[in-house]
Amino acid sequence: MEDISQDTATRAGLVMETVRTRIAARALAAGARVPSIRTMSEQLGVSKSTVVEAYERLVAQGTLVARRGSGFYVAGHAPPLALGALGPRLDREIDPLWLTRQSLESDSGALRPGCGWLPESWLPQDAVRRALRALARDPGAPLTDYASPSGLPALRQHLSWRLAQRGVEAEPRQIVLTDGGTQALDLVCRFLLEPGDTVLIDDPCYFNFQALLRAHRVRVAGVPYTPAGPDLAAFERALIEHRPRLYVTNSAIHNPTGATLAPTVAHRLLKLAEAHDLLIVEDDIFADFETGPAPRLAAFDGLARVVTIGSFSKTMSAAARCGFIAARADWIESLVDLKLAVSFGNGELTADLVYRLLVDGTYRHHLDALRARLADAMSETLQRLGALGIEPWTRPQAGLFVWARLPGGLDAARVAREALEADVVLAPGNVFSVSHSAGDFLRFNVSQCNRPKVYETLQRAMERCAQPA
Amino acid sequence: MEDISQDTATRAGLVMETVRTRIAARALAAGARVPSIRTMSEQLGVSKSTVVEAYERLVAQGTLVARRGSGFYVAGHAPPLALGALGPRLDREIDPLWLTRQSLESDSGALRPGCGWLPESWLPQDAVRRALRALARDPGAPLTDYASPSGLPALRQHLSWRLAQRGVEAEPRQIVLTDGGTQALDLVCRFLLEPGDTVLIDDPCYFNFQALLRAHRVRVAGVPYTPAGPDLAAFERALIEHRPRLYVTNSAIHNPTGATLAPTVAHRLLKLAEAHDLLIVEDDIFADFETGPAPRLAAFDGLARVVTIGSFSKTMSAAARCGFIAARADWIESLVDLKLAVSFGNGELTADLVYRLLVDGTYRHHLDALRARLADAMSETLQRLGALGIEPWTRPQAGLFVWARLPGGLDAARVAREALEADVVLAPGNVFSVSHSAGDFLRFNVSQCNRPKVYETLQRAMERCAQPA
Repeated sequence: MEDISQDTATRAGLVMETVRTRIAARALAAGARVPSIRTMSEQLGVSKSTVVEAYERLVAQGTLVARRGSGFYVAGHAPPLALGALGPRLDREIDPLWLTRQSLESDSGALRPGCGWLPESWLPQDAVRRALRALARDPGAPLTDYASPSGLPALRQHLSWRLAQRGVEAEPRQIVLTDGGTQALDLVCRFLLEPGDTVLIDDPCYFNFQALLRAHRVRVAGVPYTPAGPDLAAFERALIEHRPRLYVTNSAIHNPTGATLAPTVAHRLLKLAEAHDLLIVEDDIFADFETGPAPRLAAFDGLARVVTIGSFSKTMSAAARCGFIAARADWIESLVDLKLAVSFGNGELTADLVYRLLVDGTYRHHLDALRARLADAMSETLQRLGALGIEPWTRPQAGLFVWARLPGGLDAARVAREALEADVVLAPGNVFSVSHSAGDFLRFNVSQCNRPKVYETLQRAMERCAQPA
Repeated sequence: MEDISQDTATRAGLVMETVRTRIAARALAAGARVPSIRTMSEQLGVSKSTVVEAYERLVAQGTLVARRGSGFYVAGHAPPLALGALGPRLDREIDPLWLTRQSLESDSGALRPGCGWLPESWLPQDAVRRALRALARDPGAPLTDYASPSGLPALRQHLSWRLAQRGVEAEPRQIVLTDGGTQALDLVCRFLLEPGDTVLIDDPCYFNFQALLRAHRVRVAGVPYTPAGPDLAAFERALIEHRPRLYVTNSAIHNPTGATLAPTVAHRLLKLAEAHDLLIVEDDIFADFETGPAPRLAAFDGLARVVTIGSFSKTMSAAARCGFIAARADWIESLVDLKLAVSFGNGELTADLVYRLLVDGTYRHHLDALRARLADAMSETLQRLGALGIEPWTRPQAGLFVWARLPGGLDAARVAREALEADVVLAPGNVFSVSHSAGDFLRFNVSQCNRPKVYETLQRAMERCAQPA
């Protein structure tokens, strides 16, 4: 008798564990009806009375709620989505959203060597003003109506031409406009991913990839990045171990490292992707900073399993949200359906504004001047950082970013916290690292590093952090 | 012996069924590792050899893939998200996305009495031009930088005041700007919903609610709508039966019916929501068409369990995407984190443009004229439809829409298909009805109904459809 009752208790325990596991795996959501007594009894091969006992104990524990005549339900409502709750709990200092908030919220007196964009004065404000006036004058300008589903045809035509300059062949009908590069990535992720999928990212990578992917309820796995691209041996191991659906990367001017993908790495990476049925998103929003064309996965692959994303937020205007997706032709119809369902289309007014700037010659001149200015700022920043003993991991060919290591194993998160008290926003390495293995790195934005106070504050913060806590 | 082997077969069948169920419920995604032999054996209380047999049969059937030394995985990759595949298969003619595509893609010569917005000539184009010029002149205008996390403070301040005019008390810090009303709803749904949740919608309701909710992988349940709001008895039954997380509705000028929520219904509905822990999104994008203030759930509730959404796409410009969310204060931080993760913020340039139009007096005059013009168009449309035997379900107090029934049980989808051949886009009732119980209804947009061709085409299409197919 005792044996039997113990056995019943064990079996009830299994049923309880099954229910708890399904709730934890979100197979049973808060408020969802759990399987009926009969169904569960059949599914698990236990008696109905065992299931009843298990359910009643789960009610007593507050896990389930019984509704008369209707069955058992998962108790309560889950709280609204908190991105922090979807991943491991991070210190606010190295939470991917921390840097976003600091960069966007710090007051105008703050210096922001850790932020990811150019100072306003480096952007083509006068050209934007001229384009706004032209838009206001043009009787045919799209001022009030919804955009066509894929977005302004003239801009898509022009983007097709621009992409061809980087070796990416995409017809206008393969291009879909969005309100910025982040929205483009978000749309592609919604299109390609299901909750529970695994996504590979570079370690380190752009910090917002982690925050965005959390919102998609997917798992992320990091692959170490080398100065020539991802570490291919680690990449292959990750493919076998995690069977990821998607890999998200920047090839041309990698964020945060400033590295550039080598052609041989691109080739081998695509072979691996093919063998393991992996899709790739190439976030190419830094393309226009390039001084010489780097290899692109989208160019090698011909947009078969690679989707490319672009934006004008970094080089033209982030206030006029305009980005795009280029993808294989047979995905476009469904991708546009999804875009319409979740946004009812992109903004035609800003798309038209961007198009005007692209075709009136302004943008090309702006980029020429910008690249030269950035090259100068890069040299100066490297020299000044070197004087503090902060050495670059690689010397970037172009772009905004320097990925650099603090001397003596200093804790970059602590240094960043100290600097923030002097109104200097730094970007600590672990914000970018899913494995948290970049604790002594900082990312510097050379366009935001031209003030002596940056280096003075950095030096003082480093000195303080070198002392025992 | 035979009994035992049959029992083993049955037990293996249960394991197989468990795996298949989890795949179907998306608890196991394509490519995911299934539980180990040992884990599954313990979970289901069957022997390891039974689990091995089950897994091997699932491999033979192509459901699973075995990887040497690594375990068993769900085979293949799911195809990219197709919204059609997430819900019941619909005829393209009554697919919610059909009307969106037809309205946006039809050439400029087409007439669009079925579309959901005003003709360009009814929108304040000259005022938009003036605001663009003012923006271009203003040295402090936000032309190139990212927006602050919640969006332009001055606009949020003004929106707080506007909401108060409708009885909705929301401080500026409770308001979050978005790129349009659809993006606002999408963000709130991502914030509040998990895949598998159930959402209540009105039957009929704005067709894009269905498409958008499909993209969130939630189930929808419809509640019949009456001229005073949702049918409360059906609403309560749905709460008990489906335990929904959320109800999405428009109260003030209901789309597609033009009905207005009665105060008593609002009160009782909120009592039910409280008793069943239901959250509510009130999509109030037609608010500015109102001639007299209607009851709002957000006003009754004080933004405790109601989130309100607004936009200027319908009354000012859909090309300058600008919408907003007003919600309880303790949700804002997480909501803004999510907004940054998936969009990196709304467009500041268009927010500033909208703000200029709101405060320079232009918008108020525009609305006064627009309401009068719509009232005239409403009278004329009702009269002309009446002449064809098409009767309104209710006479709307304001707004764009007339929800009307075809005589003699005519099939509105067929009528719409016939009319499309004459380049007239109609909106068949079942596009709006999750139960497909509005097969003889059409939604008319009175601002797009002022051409004789609309009625001539409609008459001809009805005559054709009245004949046996």
